[in-house]
Amino acid sequence: METMPNWLHKRALMTPDRVAIIENDTQLTYKELQMRSVEVANALRTKGIAKGNHVGFFMQNSLEAAVCLHALMYIGTVIVPLNHRLTASELSFQLNDAELTYVISDDELKGKASEALNDLNVSLLVYQELQKGSQELSNLEVTIELNQLHTIMYTSGTTGKPKGVMLTYGNHWWSAISSSLNLGHEVQDRWLCAVPMFHMSGLSILLRSVIYGITMIIKPRFDPHVVNQSIQHEGVTIVSVVSAMLRRMLDDLGEEGYAPTLRCVLLGGGPAPYPLLKTCEKKGIPVYQTFGMTETASQLVTLSPEYMLQKQGSAGKALFPSEVVIADNLPPGEHGEIRVKGPTVTSGYWKRNEATQEALRNGWLHTGDIGYMDEDGFLFVLDRRKDLIISGGENVYPAEIESALLEHHAVKDAGVTGIQDEKWGEVPVAYVVSDQFELSSSVLLEFLSERLANYKLPKRISFVDELPRNGANKLQRNQLTNLRETKQ
Amino acid sequence: METMPNWLHKRALMTPDRVAIIENDTQLTYKELQMRSVEVANALRTKGIAKGNHVGFFMQNSLEAAVCLHALMYIGTVIVPLNHRLTASELSFQLNDAELTYVISDDELKGKASEALNDLNVSLLVYQELQKGSQELSNLEVTIELNQLHTIMYTSGTTGKPKGVMLTYGNHWWSAISSSLNLGHEVQDRWLCAVPMFHMSGLSILLRSVIYGITMIIKPRFDPHVVNQSIQHEGVTIVSVVSAMLRRMLDDLGEEGYAPTLRCVLLGGGPAPYPLLKTCEKKGIPVYQTFGMTETASQLVTLSPEYMLQKQGSAGKALFPSEVVIADNLPPGEHGEIRVKGPTVTSGYWKRNEATQEALRNGWLHTGDIGYMDEDGFLFVLDRRKDLIISGGENVYPAEIESALLEHHAVKDAGVTGIQDEKWGEVPVAYVVSDQFELSSSVLLEFLSERLANYKLPKRISFVDELPRNGANKLQRNQLTNLRETKQ
Repeated sequence: METMPNWLHKRALMTPDRVAIIENDTQLTYKELQMRSVEVANALRTKGIAKGNHVGFFMQNSLEAAVCLHALMYIGTVIVPLNHRLTASELSFQLNDAELTYVISDDELKGKASEALNDLNVSLLVYQELQKGSQELSNLEVTIELNQLHTIMYTSGTTGKPKGVMLTYGNHWWSAISSSLNLGHEVQDRWLCAVPMFHMSGLSILLRSVIYGITMIIKPRFDPHVVNQSIQHEGVTIVSVVSAMLRRMLDDLGEEGYAPTLRCVLLGGGPAPYPLLKTCEKKGIPVYQTFGMTETASQLVTLSPEYMLQKQGSAGKALFPSEVVIADNLPPGEHGEIRVKGPTVTSGYWKRNEATQEALRNGWLHTGDIGYMDEDGFLFVLDRRKDLIISGGENVYPAEIESALLEHHAVKDAGVTGIQDEKWGEVPVAYVVSDQFELSSSVLLEFLSERLANYKLPKRISFVDELPRNGANKLQRNQLTNLRETKQ
Repeated sequence: METMPNWLHKRALMTPDRVAIIENDTQLTYKELQMRSVEVANALRTKGIAKGNHVGFFMQNSLEAAVCLHALMYIGTVIVPLNHRLTASELSFQLNDAELTYVISDDELKGKASEALNDLNVSLLVYQELQKGSQELSNLEVTIELNQLHTIMYTSGTTGKPKGVMLTYGNHWWSAISSSLNLGHEVQDRWLCAVPMFHMSGLSILLRSVIYGITMIIKPRFDPHVVNQSIQHEGVTIVSVVSAMLRRMLDDLGEEGYAPTLRCVLLGGGPAPYPLLKTCEKKGIPVYQTFGMTETASQLVTLSPEYMLQKQGSAGKALFPSEVVIADNLPPGEHGEIRVKGPTVTSGYWKRNEATQEALRNGWLHTGDIGYMDEDGFLFVLDRRKDLIISGGENVYPAEIESALLEHHAVKDAGVTGIQDEKWGEVPVAYVVSDQFELSSSVLLEFLSERLANYKLPKRISFVDELPRNGANKLQRNQLTNLRETKQ
């Protein structure tokens, strides 16, 4: 199987009248989505965009953004999703590195886009300024190749320069299939997208919905109340979140539970704090912990529904047909690097042969994350290898300390990183967000000392207004030490 | 994606405790199914069966048959499913043609198997006589290749010698995925298998259940009452049938409806008579008409749920990601050969280069079935091309006349074929099964004349006890003229 029909094209042929996208009061059927995407594709072609071009996608979540992505697939461009939280100079780096010829922005982002484009030989097209294109199909790509490059997506780059992860149509296809073989998919599914479409989390919802023939509900950005309202009243069956989002959703939810239509909260973006999972258990919220990354085209390991409670804290097992091992097949319980293999794994980093060779060895992706497998083969993710703190020869995982801090009712958010220490080499320090002014670091330290071994106790606990998180809401631990304390 | 883990192996790792198979009061979890299959695989290896061997599968539907099929996949043999309704000489032909080295039969079929093996250099192994094998995995195939030959399955051969259709792991895999992208699949699905596992219909249930991680309920043979009881009381969500089966199920059901757990009656094996579909509509039975064949590893075209009523009589649209056209892309409404393309299509017939070249041209399978596409792209299957009757220059489709006959309340079954005619070249003749002795051919002819054009009216209507159907319950029209009439 090397080629198949363009996904939207095939889907619109199969189920033209199903609802593809809902945004507030607007909804598009698959037939309508297809027609609009074809019109936009032709409009973009008129502007000079052609098959194989590297095109920057610089739009906020919206129905138009979805149409634009499908239009680019109809042209057969390589899509380079750009994070609009980046600074102009960070953007310039990616525009240049990805060898873009065009950037498409929405009206609101065009100022920032222009700034980033400054000296580069890249054309800016504003979606809202496009003339309506024709419905002509003859110049568009109605067939795709599975090994065709679909996306170059820059990793959040918590250290070093961002790298462009190359993902093919095949990577995305298999990701959709793998997920479905775990979560199932039902004709009446509605997947809520309040995560950015410039990240794998949001993009995967767009692609899965068209492959499955289900409905995607788009929200412009994450707002816990808006998301909760959507779950309660718009028939959402699946929602993708990271821990920090879920925590805010639960705060907003108060004493209530979720509507029974919600069958899956797909929780990614790093290990979930135990207290959060406990609250979900109490409320009967069906949380599926997952582990994945841009390099695996979204989730690769997921906890199957029947083990949600029994294996709480585990990311589950590798999705069908992917595989996961710890380092060179370490036995159960032993900690080591998580390595994965399967059809969703990237073929490498754009123009970074060295990084590619380091990450991909004999078909196995070395993730740089540390974890272990229990006796039943369930994966437990401990932390990023680069975030690991080695203190007096002991491994200290920031995520474990954060999780313990979050168990305290007055702690809203917590981040831990390592700093140099003469005696121990490294020691952990913690940054805490709390709305209770009277909370002191000594109280927290005492709280922690009941839960953690001595060598894991932070040498210092600082109170801050907010933790640094990137566009995907992931904690950026390497920026913690730059934070200004709000109180002593 | 060229390799992946053995399906049962992966499934047992992911969801060991889910119920894999139910047969009467016995049920096996995926872990148990795996252990048994490994034991049988090792027992068979001890008997000399090795990777790449062509092994005949000659067992009736049972839990043991399912274990045996998985054992053969663990060894990596090519499976040659044998129809136990065939005569010994028909079997001998297939054993010889497929170059079998071993046949595995169950206890009940060993006599017939011995007879067929008579002069051939093929070893017979009886499943029930095997010693329990070890649980050693080291000699088994825990990885499969998608282009590895999985099955040689002989087509029912309504004319000419049967041909062995070659199907790879990839064909079966994509068939499972394609079906799921249409029907959805839910964690709690239970697929009832009362169709033979030596046919694509039954084998596909076995393979899909393990890929999806759902439960397969096995019945030894089709019995309308047993099937109905299972649907009503065993939580069946999907059942695979052909029209003749469904008709008998409805007779047994009487005035009742089905339990709401039943979400899909997958109806294959040829065009469905209109009256049958109308009864299902009245009872709210969710029928999904399909079109497929051994050469496409089961269903390839299926009517999506939302069109069941609106497009009654249509087989639907090609499943994701397959494609279907009429001849060389005939416009809507025009009749021609149905041609299909996609990852489930066979690579050809075993040792029949000529037949392969005739059937497969530029990646398109020429099905030999005639149909048309309506303006919305829905496929309507008219009949087998070789069953087409050309009468006075007009195309006459036996299926259309059969469907009209079945609208008569006293007609239980009907078959139509063409015979030579001096004046018209060919004319249709009909064979009818009825339990009302007073029903006469003149009454039926009058009934038909209100529904069909004159040139479609059968020249003769004969009453018979039973129609010839093959192992898959498919009407064998070429044997109709051999029938003995039960009355004038």
